[in-house]
Amino acid sequence: MEYKITVMKNAFYAQSGGVTSVINCSAYGLISKFQKDFSGANIYASKNGIVGLLENELYDLSKTTKPLENLLEMPGGAFGSCRFKLPGLEDEKFYQDLFERLDKLLIGYFFYNGGNDSADTCLKVAKAAEKFGYDLKAIAVPKTIDNDLAVTDNCPGFGSVAKYVATSAKEASLDIRSMCKTSTKVFVLEVMGRHAGWIAAAGELANDANDTFVHKILLPEIQFNKENFLSGVESDISKYGYSVIVASEGLKDKDGELYSSSKEKDSFGHSQLGGLAPKVASLITDELGLKNHWSVADYLQRSARHISSTTDIEQAIAVGKAAVTLAAEGKSGVMPVIKRTSNNPYKWEITVGDLTDIANEEKVLPSSYISDDGFRITADGINYLRPLIVGESFPKFSDGIPIYENIDLHLR
Amino acid sequence: MEYKITVMKNAFYAQSGGVTSVINCSAYGLISKFQKDFSGANIYASKNGIVGLLENELYDLSKTTKPLENLLEMPGGAFGSCRFKLPGLEDEKFYQDLFERLDKLLIGYFFYNGGNDSADTCLKVAKAAEKFGYDLKAIAVPKTIDNDLAVTDNCPGFGSVAKYVATSAKEASLDIRSMCKTSTKVFVLEVMGRHAGWIAAAGELANDANDTFVHKILLPEIQFNKENFLSGVESDISKYGYSVIVASEGLKDKDGELYSSSKEKDSFGHSQLGGLAPKVASLITDELGLKNHWSVADYLQRSARHISSTTDIEQAIAVGKAAVTLAAEGKSGVMPVIKRTSNNPYKWEITVGDLTDIANEEKVLPSSYISDDGFRITADGINYLRPLIVGESFPKFSDGIPIYENIDLHLR
Repeated sequence: MEYKITVMKNAFYAQSGGVTSVINCSAYGLISKFQKDFSGANIYASKNGIVGLLENELYDLSKTTKPLENLLEMPGGAFGSCRFKLPGLEDEKFYQDLFERLDKLLIGYFFYNGGNDSADTCLKVAKAAEKFGYDLKAIAVPKTIDNDLAVTDNCPGFGSVAKYVATSAKEASLDIRSMCKTSTKVFVLEVMGRHAGWIAAAGELANDANDTFVHKILLPEIQFNKENFLSGVESDISKYGYSVIVASEGLKDKDGELYSSSKEKDSFGHSQLGGLAPKVASLITDELGLKNHWSVADYLQRSARHISSTTDIEQAIAVGKAAVTLAAEGKSGVMPVIKRTSNNPYKWEITVGDLTDIANEEKVLPSSYISDDGFRITADGINYLRPLIVGESFPKFSDGIPIYENIDLHLR
Repeated sequence: MEYKITVMKNAFYAQSGGVTSVINCSAYGLISKFQKDFSGANIYASKNGIVGLLENELYDLSKTTKPLENLLEMPGGAFGSCRFKLPGLEDEKFYQDLFERLDKLLIGYFFYNGGNDSADTCLKVAKAAEKFGYDLKAIAVPKTIDNDLAVTDNCPGFGSVAKYVATSAKEASLDIRSMCKTSTKVFVLEVMGRHAGWIAAAGELANDANDTFVHKILLPEIQFNKENFLSGVESDISKYGYSVIVASEGLKDKDGELYSSSKEKDSFGHSQLGGLAPKVASLITDELGLKNHWSVADYLQRSARHISSTTDIEQAIAVGKAAVTLAAEGKSGVMPVIKRTSNNPYKWEITVGDLTDIANEEKVLPSSYISDDGFRITADGINYLRPLIVGESFPKFSDGIPIYENIDLHLR
């Protein structure tokens, strides 16, 4: 008598790069579907991105007793993330060590949840597996607030930041509108986006057919024209009484240099403090003599799970689940991507993208989304952006603040 | 036959000083109760604080057709606010003009919704009315995010900012916690509070019995000790892997000067850009060489109606209503105040305070609320703060952002 033994391969999951308020929703989708579809196999989550694998720190998710649903409400990376660049494929020693580590745990599926750099990491692992003959399906799961991944219509993580920015800009605008008669005339909100202006563009969503809350948007795609900007602010003030500006940290000056990185040094020889918002505010003070306020949203914008978009959450879960489906189909070097199938009503589905088309590519705002003067977003842009912020999925609160309870983590 | 004609006096309502996310809740309480209790009389809302009265711009609220309940969800000042200091009582001409304006509209009740300065304005009007023999009941309605009004246990507007700060700090902390292994080690969140540290203190509410999300709080009440601070940040990093700091804009250096107002000038002779957060961040970069991020919440914190505290909203409505009751009782030169009658369970009621005890006073954090090292809030402080942020009252959303529809305003 003969027995045929099929060994079900285990899975590795890691979070990588800057986290978002919904990356753990992708973890939820992926882990729950893997545990269901690959029952009998185990899934390990790497502590602090791929670093956990290299330092032998992996969480054994079969030991978790708290509900995986906790992940749906927790911002940040539940398992820790990292910024870590993998060496090139010529570093055989590195990859052989990597595959030995994976092999020891019978890992056949490598899921890597991140942005452009992480897509590159995942592609390297896929290629190295092929080169060194290790049987591994390497699949990237998209995540970035920057919304700059190629091939996919949009990126999980972006919709929630866009919702935060539009909401915050509208609120701040109502505040300054109350005060502008005798006090503050200009408000500058600095948001993230070093190379692509998607997040700043979301400021346009504060506006509606009846009312303008955000008057200027400063994008990295458009070189900063100081004179046009200042005269535009002046006309906002004549027309509305005040001006609200949403500015991308990556704004470039006319030489293509970052506008925020001043050439001036302070008396200690340090570069000038502060980001873009204080610099734009200072320009307004110096050139127009107008009282102004400024805000830098920084980490607040990308961790604000309390105001995440339901659309974003659903898509984050969906790409996590789709990664497992791709694994089951034996795909490698790929990423599940979001495809918009209809704009009104908004409909989307998950398809698949090749990592060679995605890794290290950067999708910036198309010029058709930018108004002729460079300071606003067109109807086309609004049509693209609007559906991504729709829906509220407030987390559970206790004692006045969100609970944000993680699952219990057990190193294997 | 004789007719006795009673002329019901009309009311004047104005919003003053920096607005909050719930000042319109006080407007709602006050206007709705006045219209009910003083039926037949009219209430006028002044455009842009008292400036509207002086410029003859008053909204006639009897002409409003949209539901007053809209005010419950709208941040900022629905009627506009102002920063405007009234002259002393010796300026007879000013006050006679003021009372002529009020008299023309048969106004017998003067409601002024604001903070310390506004209490002073209201007190001046009450005294001037007495001095010049004008029959007017002048009643202040408390409002300030700074929570620094005397006599009242707390101030409407503060609880919502406190909830915003605690929530945002917890979220950002979860973000940096994911990244600290290979990237950012320190996060600084700058919040408002020039003289009193109540808002920064609310950062402590991010913490709970099981976990620490905020590691340091920088208060204006405690002169900044750079050495202790830096060594504290280093021990946070040894213990937790990272450090989150909530810092009050009003932090003082060891000479009692604002720490943010650097003495250094840039090459144009301007004072250095940026607020407190970039300065603290720069200190950490220079002295500890640690990667850090910083955020300045500015107007976002005080306009964030999407995360207002239900307790705060209820109290804002209650002081608005109580002002009308005081008016009906013929009181003047007073303010409804919040009295805490029990801490656990939290209970409160509205009593009355005399404006002479409130105007221009400033209540700072008592030392019993501040830890011995000056960087944290004690259990006493937490017991005071916690109930103020409890409860969620999310606004209605449409197309992904809060609607925030004002009532319709008609100048008389």
